Amino acid sequence: MDTTRPGRVSVIGSGQCDATQYETARRVGELAARAGYEIVCGGLGGVMTAVCQGAREAGGHTIGILPGDDVRAANPYVDVPVATGLGIARNVLVVKNGDAVIAVAGGAGTLSEIGVALKLGRPVAALGCFGGIEGVRAVSSPEEALVFVASHLKK
Amino acid sequence: MDTTRPGRVSVIGSGQCDATQYETARRVGELAARAGYEIVCGGLGGVMTAVCQGAREAGGHTIGILPGDDVRAANPYVDVPVATGLGIARNVLVVKNGDAVIAVAGGAGTLSEIGVALKLGRPVAALGCFGGIEGVRAVSSPEEALVFVASHLKK
Amino acid sequence: MDTTRPGRVSVIGSGQCDATQYETARRVGELAARAGYEIVCGGLGGVMTAVCQGAREAGGHTIGILPGDDVRAANPYVDVPVATGLGIARNVLVVKNGDAVIAVAGGAGTLSEIGVALKLGRPVAALGCFGGIEGVRAVSSPEEALVFVASHLKK
Amino acid sequence: MDTTRPGRVSVIGSGQCDATQYETARRVGELAARAGYEIVCGGLGGVMTAVCQGAREAGGHTIGILPGDDVRAANPYVDVPVATGLGIARNVLVVKNGDAVIAVAGGAGTLSEIGVALKLGRPVAALGCFGGIEGVRAVSSPEEALVFVASHLKK
Repeated sequence: MDTTRPGRVSVIGSGQCDATQYETARRVGELAARAGYEIVCGGLGGVMTAVCQGAREAGGHTIGILPGDDVRAANPYVDVPVATGLGIARNVLVVKNGDAVIAVAGGAGTLSEIGVALKLGRPVAALGCFGGIEGVRAVSSPEEALVFVASHLKK
Repeated sequence: MDTTRPGRVSVIGSGQCDATQYETARRVGELAARAGYEIVCGGLGGVMTAVCQGAREAGGHTIGILPGDDVRAANPYVDVPVATGLGIARNVLVVKNGDAVIAVAGGAGTLSEIGVALKLGRPVAALGCFGGIEGVRAVSSPEEALVFVASHLKK
Repeated sequence: MDTTRPGRVSVIGSGQCDATQYETARRVGELAARAGYEIVCGGLGGVMTAVCQGAREAGGHTIGILPGDDVRAANPYVDVPVATGLGIARNVLVVKNGDAVIAVAGGAGTLSEIGVALKLGRPVAALGCFGGIEGVRAVSSPEEALVFVASHLKK
Repeated sequence: MDTTRPGRVSVIGSGQCDATQYETARRVGELAARAGYEIVCGGLGGVMTAVCQGAREAGGHTIGILPGDDVRAANPYVDVPVATGLGIARNVLVVKNGDAVIAVAGGAGTLSEIGVALKLGRPVAALGCFGGIEGVRAVSSPEEALVFVASHLKK
């Protein structure tokens, strides 16, 4: 085992988002990369593209776990696309591969991922959605989300 | 395609529950079976055992979709145990195989199933848990849960 | 655990087959049902339809584990269709849910299932295909296939 | 879509192997990395460790798709471990994420992967095992395996 592996943050959220949400997710990616974390996400659009763009522009590394069979469906900021062919069951893998989870602006799919994360004992921070769920830490900025993550993980 | 297949209700909830929750889930199974629905559940204990017991005692049919590799892990009221070896990802299959979902007394795993159900467009009724989630119908009795299901499905 | 559960035979083979192969698979289903076994298969056409027809006409019980999301894709002789949405990964579940495996007239997908079956330690009989693989028992009739299965399982 | 993504070679084989097989797999990894391909494998021991070691020592990039829930189970030469929790069903993902497949010294699990590869239309080269299966190209050296792969893929 390589004990020097970086920590990983799973960032979850909708495949379609507005400009403010996009900027929030991009900033989460940027801060996570600067803090030395890898990004895991669902590899598609919206929040997933934004967080990967932010991470990549800050020199980070991004993993996209896709629902379909074709790695070419990944957004262009994904370094390592992983095709699963599992459909929505790939959500479980997105969560499982992160040491902590940050939710940004999501819907029902994101809710399913939060459930899995809580079941697996992952720390979960939520920005602008689902902050009222027991066990989820509501945060008000990307910075606060990263502080929460860092308090639970080492780099 | 066999157009005479009965409708199916996925009943979700914790693997450990108290006597009141057990009676609620048992009654859900009983009413669903009487209404001609098959039961789909996770096949293990607590709410899952209760709903299967209720359905079986009313002459119904029960399917248990298990997280592990061994069908013998199913509770004794499961007619058709299905081993998946998928771990928590089996939750997706539990939801996918029902035409509607009733949640009884669950935790994080149940929350993940509700998220999947909403994502897949299944009608969801909740008894005593998660009724506050947008898109979930909070109901106050097994009878009300079945009326909700029946209003969305035909037998 | 219900110790009275019947044994299960997974029957695998191509989704398209000729009349001779169809009759072979139908006969496998008939004999398995008469011997008290449940049939597990992939739930679709060709060999899968044939084995389910044979089993049903002999009063047996059939489970179809489908690659897609819609139980209505099952052939009309499937008693319990299970939608997985896992694509070809559902092959693993087809094998896992049988106590023994009979292969009839298959191609690459069937080969993948034989590999999984051998890996999981299931006894495998092959009728007219793949009989040369180490660990697979080549048999020359449905009757011989069922004798092989019966020698490994109890009802 | 990033059209500059490197091609990927899935290398499959047993989790336990002898020194000759190890050296063969290591050489496959080395040659694949020099040719500009990423390695995809099951992330564990034996052939999987060997191919990752060879690739890494030649400056390549390695992805390990694991059966379990813990990325720390990956061998130390895996750059990107992916936890699936799918058990043997993860074999499907190993194959799906490669553009071509090279089999080295495997058993039943490897056979299942060859079946999936053929079903998905991936070119498959086999070194010292399973060369007799229809659709599989038997090759006699790592060099020949890579020539076969290169003839099917562009870098």
